Amino acid sequence: MIYDLVIHNGTILTENETDDVIENGLICVKGARLARIESRPPDTPLPVAAETIDAAGGLIMPGLVNTHTHLPMTLFRGLADDLPLDTWLNEYIFPAENRHINPETVRVGTLLAIAEMLLSGTTTCCDGYFYEDVVAAAVESTGLRALVGQGVIDFPAPGVPDPSRNLGTAADFLNHWKDRHPMITPSVFCHSPYTCSPSTLEATKTLAREAGVLFQIHVAETRSEAEQSLTNHGLSPIAHLDRIGVLDKRTLLVHCVHLSQRDITTINKNGAKISHNPESNMKLAAGVAPIPALLSAGVTVGLGTDGCASNNNLDLFGEMDTAAKLHKATSNDPTVLDAHRVLKMATIDGARAIGLGDTTGSIEIGKQADVIILDTKRPHLTPLYSPWSHVVYAARGSDVTYTVVAGKIVVADGCLKTMGIDNVLEDARKISRQVLAK
Amino acid sequence: MIYDLVIHNGTILTENETDDVIENGLICVKGARLARIESRPPDTPLPVAAETIDAAGGLIMPGLVNTHTHLPMTLFRGLADDLPLDTWLNEYIFPAENRHINPETVRVGTLLAIAEMLLSGTTTCCDGYFYEDVVAAAVESTGLRALVGQGVIDFPAPGVPDPSRNLGTAADFLNHWKDRHPMITPSVFCHSPYTCSPSTLEATKTLAREAGVLFQIHVAETRSEAEQSLTNHGLSPIAHLDRIGVLDKRTLLVHCVHLSQRDITTINKNGAKISHNPESNMKLAAGVAPIPALLSAGVTVGLGTDGCASNNNLDLFGEMDTAAKLHKATSNDPTVLDAHRVLKMATIDGARAIGLGDTTGSIEIGKQADVIILDTKRPHLTPLYSPWSHVVYAARGSDVTYTVVAGKIVVADGCLKTMGIDNVLEDARKISRQVLAK
Repeated sequence: MIYDLVIHNGTILTENETDDVIENGLICVKGARLARIESRPPDTPLPVAAETIDAAGGLIMPGLVNTHTHLPMTLFRGLADDLPLDTWLNEYIFPAENRHINPETVRVGTLLAIAEMLLSGTTTCCDGYFYEDVVAAAVESTGLRALVGQGVIDFPAPGVPDPSRNLGTAADFLNHWKDRHPMITPSVFCHSPYTCSPSTLEATKTLAREAGVLFQIHVAETRSEAEQSLTNHGLSPIAHLDRIGVLDKRTLLVHCVHLSQRDITTINKNGAKISHNPESNMKLAAGVAPIPALLSAGVTVGLGTDGCASNNNLDLFGEMDTAAKLHKATSNDPTVLDAHRVLKMATIDGARAIGLGDTTGSIEIGKQADVIILDTKRPHLTPLYSPWSHVVYAARGSDVTYTVVAGKIVVADGCLKTMGIDNVLEDARKISRQVLAK
Repeated sequence: MIYDLVIHNGTILTENETDDVIENGLICVKGARLARIESRPPDTPLPVAAETIDAAGGLIMPGLVNTHTHLPMTLFRGLADDLPLDTWLNEYIFPAENRHINPETVRVGTLLAIAEMLLSGTTTCCDGYFYEDVVAAAVESTGLRALVGQGVIDFPAPGVPDPSRNLGTAADFLNHWKDRHPMITPSVFCHSPYTCSPSTLEATKTLAREAGVLFQIHVAETRSEAEQSLTNHGLSPIAHLDRIGVLDKRTLLVHCVHLSQRDITTINKNGAKISHNPESNMKLAAGVAPIPALLSAGVTVGLGTDGCASNNNLDLFGEMDTAAKLHKATSNDPTVLDAHRVLKMATIDGARAIGLGDTTGSIEIGKQADVIILDTKRPHLTPLYSPWSHVVYAARGSDVTYTVVAGKIVVADGCLKTMGIDNVLEDARKISRQVLAK
């Protein structure tokens, strides 16, 4: 048998059910899928393959899964920081979106984000924004795997100036992208319980259920949101969503910072999933999500970076490091969220959270070949006692040398292979000058 | 005039008193010092120089100052994580130190740490450990600037098996390294108030005062330390140190997590300085130091990574990001510790904290030419609205392309120029195998 791709000479972190670690690992890829995973005895001939990657003694691991992004907002990276939330949103982000978000800027911002993600080892992301048909089209050419969620909000939004068209636009989007491209899974993204009425939430969830797609929503992000929900609905944000009936196994709850124990029980009972965005929550002073309690309850939690306007990068290695440390600091317990637990949040649990647990997130035969290689011969990764510790506490996105998605090499020797980046960078700079000029 | 080094074509973040930012920056170095700093009009000829660095449109900024390291412990990076503090220390770190720390391992661990620091833009560090004569000798060849502090502790320690020799060893160390090498400043490092008796603390501070050197000490790191101090001395750790008389302008207090308002007043009144190590404090679940309150009181605070056994890297870019975000999260205020404030902690304030404020930490004529260049043309640093935001929230140590210390290029195009690293990495791996074999 001739394989399409062979990867060898590294330690494989499978992140499978039994957490197998395979020394002298060999991975063979046929088409887009993993066909063979084993330890290769020294001096054994390599299987014949169209392409072969020597991992040079590094770590071979599943590509990372970013469960929450707003890709086009990468254009606003560092536009406004260290501000009160309402000033940040109302005086900077919303005006910049109103003036500058259009199909062309969405295309550029998305490509810029994809370049950053592929270079730092993210092979799958779950996006929610507007003009998502443009986002999906941009994703198509790059090799990234993406859940692409058209935004729904009861206010005029980019590409949907009339909110009464929000649901129709989302329905058209789902129809158009249904089974159209193997790397693109359409989804809907209701902005939040405070910007969508109960009837919008209910109708959008119905649309998602009928189409069989993931329903994403920001919820319980800030204390004031939680308080407002109590005032307006007599219920916590989670209880409010539960009463409307939008919580189920295909619901991704983003942030979930302000939860009661009862909210955690409600989430768990309904099988809803969580996207944890610690860096964004810290930077905007939203608070700290009760992740140890959610995990104890058995809730599936993935990691996300959020958009670049509030993070300010898409590096999941940094996000893993922060997640692992933050919960130790706030719980006064150095044993919570150990390194391996956090790596699972950024791989297989993230994939499960967005409904792609059978597709990606671990290195197992039959799954998609979404694989990255880390160069561990660098000073800051030497010596190596525990690969999980290194991945979470010492590595950076820039340690990724190879990124493979669906069997296709998209980054080799730290360079993008599927997309030109110079024009994207130049276009992004041009847009940033327009943003500064107002 | 012919310069030794010219750096041009970048934006200079001076971090001087008026926070000047110089577009189209030009820096001229004569010997080890900054001789000329200005904006260079386009198409003006470059000054003649022995060496010229084109910053390629990137950021030119002061080299970073790491105010707390244990360089040889880099050998234990990732040896033990996610454990209760006493298990971590008593079952892993102390036994590993007892068995494996000797002059040769100290030399290797120090060189490994220096390689990592220079590559990630740190030009000065403040170290405290044992066998510091070996540490200083290793620093000598690499081009790093270092405060090197011989450890004092009332227990048998590496190189000082008899604690009654601790002070004598430190005195010999200070004598030997006084004015010996322009890049090495000797210091003493009392381990902590709970491992040094009042008489040891007093005698060590007297020694430091007479030698005119910095006195470093870990203090108020954990809640149990603070409680124990109250039980044993009827005083907080800071009040205990104050009563013994060791707090003054040449005292560096490392950690300071558990402080009362009265402790902050005491620190400020005595002019003592702080080394803030947020990642180590988070990872060991020590708590969160009251940095906003310390800064409001006017205390000088520098940043530190701590040793690699508790962080697990020496990347000050990651440390800046964490510091800026952590205090927002725990104070529920997104405006505290803004990006520029945090950059100052990692540059000029760090230099002031360790007594080198007139030497390094900012780009000003007459100061040492400790300068780094960041490549901002990468996807994750595009677009650029605010340089401070990028440095703190988006950049990584791997974005440093050039590191210059005392006018000498130690990293060029991301590669070490003053030290071979292959043997160091191989030696570090060899030692790690011995550590694993016990």
